[in-house]
Amino acid sequence: MKVFVVGANGQIGKLLVEFLKESADHNVRAMLRKQEQAKEFETKGIETAIASLEGSVEDIASAAKGCDAVVFAAGSGGQTGLDKTLLVDLDGAVKTVEAAEQAGIDRFIMISALQAHNRENWSETIKPYYVAKHYADRALLQSSLNYTIIRPGGLLNEQGTGKIMVAENLGSGTIPRIDVARTILACLNEERTFKKSFDLLSGDTEVAEALKSL
Amino acid sequence: MKVFVVGANGQIGKLLVEFLKESADHNVRAMLRKQEQAKEFETKGIETAIASLEGSVEDIASAAKGCDAVVFAAGSGGQTGLDKTLLVDLDGAVKTVEAAEQAGIDRFIMISALQAHNRENWSETIKPYYVAKHYADRALLQSSLNYTIIRPGGLLNEQGTGKIMVAENLGSGTIPRIDVARTILACLNEERTFKKSFDLLSGDTEVAEALKSL
Repeated sequence: MKVFVVGANGQIGKLLVEFLKESADHNVRAMLRKQEQAKEFETKGIETAIASLEGSVEDIASAAKGCDAVVFAAGSGGQTGLDKTLLVDLDGAVKTVEAAEQAGIDRFIMISALQAHNRENWSETIKPYYVAKHYADRALLQSSLNYTIIRPGGLLNEQGTGKIMVAENLGSGTIPRIDVARTILACLNEERTFKKSFDLLSGDTEVAEALKSL
Repeated sequence: MKVFVVGANGQIGKLLVEFLKESADHNVRAMLRKQEQAKEFETKGIETAIASLEGSVEDIASAAKGCDAVVFAAGSGGQTGLDKTLLVDLDGAVKTVEAAEQAGIDRFIMISALQAHNRENWSETIKPYYVAKHYADRALLQSSLNYTIIRPGGLLNEQGTGKIMVAENLGSGTIPRIDVARTILACLNEERTFKKSFDLLSGDTEVAEALKSL
């Protein structure tokens, strides 16, 4: 599979791009906003495309054209305001869904947030962020795409364990970003994750095995 | 019809509540956040219910129970931050849609914003607000309800003319809030507005006649 990674310059995105590059089964095309970012990736031998989540659906679609799967791993992050939460985390994500449909790419993996499907479990301090993620996920669920919605808990930069826990509903917890990237990679061809959404935390089970329980 | 007005204490809401109270065809129940607000309305002989758009769907549903139509005229307004845009204009609106479904109220009128359905026409300065309105409208479109989505242009506090212009797409323009309230009132039983969305500006045609052109 050739995988179009949106948010390739983000923390999870960078790890995922590396995994895809090293993978025997997949290729990668990194979507980047700026030419400087693209150069960095290209010197490492990674294919890139320039497009912005604040641009048009058509621009994102033409950047993605020819790929077999899309991973949305972008996030406006804690440094920017809630304007970007609305423009990137919500509208940017939905534009990417529409772009995948337009480009005829059926497989779509969304990185969401733990319990984004249950309003009553949204942490008070980042509730507005949860609203954005919730409606982005809804748009994907209502699309024609073969989706997987991965809802990881608190993201850490620790070394990974390669062991996870997945279920429709999990309590609060954390997971290293590298194990989220591993999970995305393992989902791509795993039919048990097709048209599924699940919470994701660190756990005791190897990634591949955990996904088979879905 | 007994009409449940969400955002009854807002500028359009207050005008609409007055019209409904004076109307021979309708009754009104005003949804308010605070007991003090409710008292003000009750001294005028208006039925009230206390609920918050930041509360649960169940709370809104039980406040609306027994009404025949819901009008969503709430807006977080320019005084509050984008957190409220996400929590009220988006999630609050969608919770109200879900509450109407839960309470078995089929008729739903949403006050949206001019061109909220066309990303390319969103004003740069209030784009995040447009994102919120857009996804709230989408949720209503995808609901089971008998909706009307009214998308007024720039809102003025001028005296109204009672004359409007409606169409799927209109260029930029303005309209007095009182004429928006009149339009809502006229939509309630107007079958030509059922399952329709339209832009709304000041114009040359009487409200009732303009709606028949839809």
